[in-house]
Amino acid sequence: MSLQNDLLLRALAGESTPRPPVWLMRQAGRILPEYRAIRSRLSGFKELVETPELACEVTIQPVDLLGVDAAILFSDILVVPEAMGLPYELVEKVGPRFPETIGSASDLKRLHAVEPEEHLGYVMEAMRMTRKELNGRVPLIGFAGAPWTIFCYMVEGGGSKEWSRARRMLRSEPALAEDLLDRITEATILYLNAQVDAGAQALQLFDSWAGAMDSDLFERYSMPRLKRICDEVKGAPLIVFAKGAGWQMDRLSELSCPALGVDWHMPIAEARRRAPEHVLQGNLDPSVLYGTEAEVRAATQRMLSHFGRGRYVANLGHGVYPDIHPDRVRAFIDEVKQSAHIGNVN
Amino acid sequence: MSLQNDLLLRALAGESTPRPPVWLMRQAGRILPEYRAIRSRLSGFKELVETPELACEVTIQPVDLLGVDAAILFSDILVVPEAMGLPYELVEKVGPRFPETIGSASDLKRLHAVEPEEHLGYVMEAMRMTRKELNGRVPLIGFAGAPWTIFCYMVEGGGSKEWSRARRMLRSEPALAEDLLDRITEATILYLNAQVDAGAQALQLFDSWAGAMDSDLFERYSMPRLKRICDEVKGAPLIVFAKGAGWQMDRLSELSCPALGVDWHMPIAEARRRAPEHVLQGNLDPSVLYGTEAEVRAATQRMLSHFGRGRYVANLGHGVYPDIHPDRVRAFIDEVKQSAHIGNVN
Repeated sequence: MSLQNDLLLRALAGESTPRPPVWLMRQAGRILPEYRAIRSRLSGFKELVETPELACEVTIQPVDLLGVDAAILFSDILVVPEAMGLPYELVEKVGPRFPETIGSASDLKRLHAVEPEEHLGYVMEAMRMTRKELNGRVPLIGFAGAPWTIFCYMVEGGGSKEWSRARRMLRSEPALAEDLLDRITEATILYLNAQVDAGAQALQLFDSWAGAMDSDLFERYSMPRLKRICDEVKGAPLIVFAKGAGWQMDRLSELSCPALGVDWHMPIAEARRRAPEHVLQGNLDPSVLYGTEAEVRAATQRMLSHFGRGRYVANLGHGVYPDIHPDRVRAFIDEVKQSAHIGNVN
Repeated sequence: MSLQNDLLLRALAGESTPRPPVWLMRQAGRILPEYRAIRSRLSGFKELVETPELACEVTIQPVDLLGVDAAILFSDILVVPEAMGLPYELVEKVGPRFPETIGSASDLKRLHAVEPEEHLGYVMEAMRMTRKELNGRVPLIGFAGAPWTIFCYMVEGGGSKEWSRARRMLRSEPALAEDLLDRITEATILYLNAQVDAGAQALQLFDSWAGAMDSDLFERYSMPRLKRICDEVKGAPLIVFAKGAGWQMDRLSELSCPALGVDWHMPIAEARRRAPEHVLQGNLDPSVLYGTEAEVRAATQRMLSHFGRGRYVANLGHGVYPDIHPDRVRAFIDEVKQSAHIGNVN
């Protein structure tokens, strides 16, 4: 079935579009009252992630209620370490927690290879259901965490500001770290390819904690694995979003994926200069949406004009915050859509 | 009394030195068994901060035990908001917590102007005692948090990854935010000048969460206040360390302070290019010290060669981690000291 709105796929293919496509990281869940109504009936976040009918419903909500140009499957990057053998919990107001972590070579025995349809069948089912339910209105995005970001959680067992224990393992036990990172990389490639088989039409790789690495660590531990994922994931365009790693943008520009995410810290001109061939995605500071509607529209206009025409997907520079009013999100989306009127073409 | 080791002050004055001076952020406390022996006898971290004899003792420990070229007073940036009227607690394994926070204009009534000798007498006393006790061996560094970083804690009440509530106040209540930031700025100027009167021979301003801001917020809320602090603090050279704000280094280079800190994320060549006139300080990733001694020495050599000769103070790119072995810190310091042998002069 052909897509009614193929702006995102055309933009990711480098084609010219009458205006930039727009979607938001974390658009599914968090901000919509309609999402909260569903969430409040459930035992917890994981029930929502693991129940395909519900994941499908909240994935489609922002398409209907906000008018975004793409749906992104409601799920969590931590389903992959769980599928590898380390279950996670989500503790209310605290965040993710892994009761067991990887601290030594013997802990690797807890892990096993991932068979996506077997260990992550609920994601695959949600993907198939959502693709069918969307019925060609907009493309469906799948996603996974990057190896380093997943590694951080598997080693530290929860959130951290600087991920010093994860970095300690890179520095003090490099062989163990490489082994674990390779296992995550293999699981991630299988998982993303399975998502494409199940209906994902575009993919995003979230390297949320890339910014914790210096250039040496990034070069040794991250870059080869990001490269491998870009080369071995087939069938859908991939967006690599390495948050906080703007200084690595020159290196990221050598990846074979068509698109790179830009966080809100990085000046847009620097991103364009360092990755001139890639489609760029981003990068409004989510906190702009705490301002007035006029401020949201003005900041969105500035962002659009800095990115310029073509090779661009409008988004925030990170996930939308839970207490943002949906009307501000609508103003952001509307402002991007209005940019058609100023003739934003390649 | 003249200083026996004036390397830091000469480097901050832009003079040539036979080798770069070296000290470590968080060198006092955390890593030394001799520090832990003192700490374990006390009720908590605050008792140490508030008892001048003890603060003096742990401030001097790294001079004797590690051989650093400067002492930095053992204290905490959160003494300033406490002196303004918001007491803090340090919760074991969690971090700082403010039972009361600033959420609205009426909360500002809790705050008052700071008289350093009255409200922060224990810091001034510790400074005088330490200066005397050091007896001219090395210079004594004082410090404070930058307005934005202190604002983050006063608004959020504790640590945060993205400081979204603090940024929400900047976006949604700019007048309140400016008022609070100005009060902190005034307290900080008084506090730093009082530290100089009490014996501080150099100063560092820690803007630990500068990286949470985009360029617009930095420009509006931070830059004018950093400028004011640089212009109004007199009598000792100031190092401004805006962690995570490498993209603002061009703007920071317009500050009248002699030195800027560089975090471990930023390529050294970029820092030199953007702030060519300033003395730079940094920037080894603290996690390098988890590696072998040979790795520590090799990474330190790379850092030294990237910074090049002159206008340089060797340091880590952030505070040393508590579980780093002191011998690795000694290897880092020794490697900098050895660089005299390769003729590192201006």
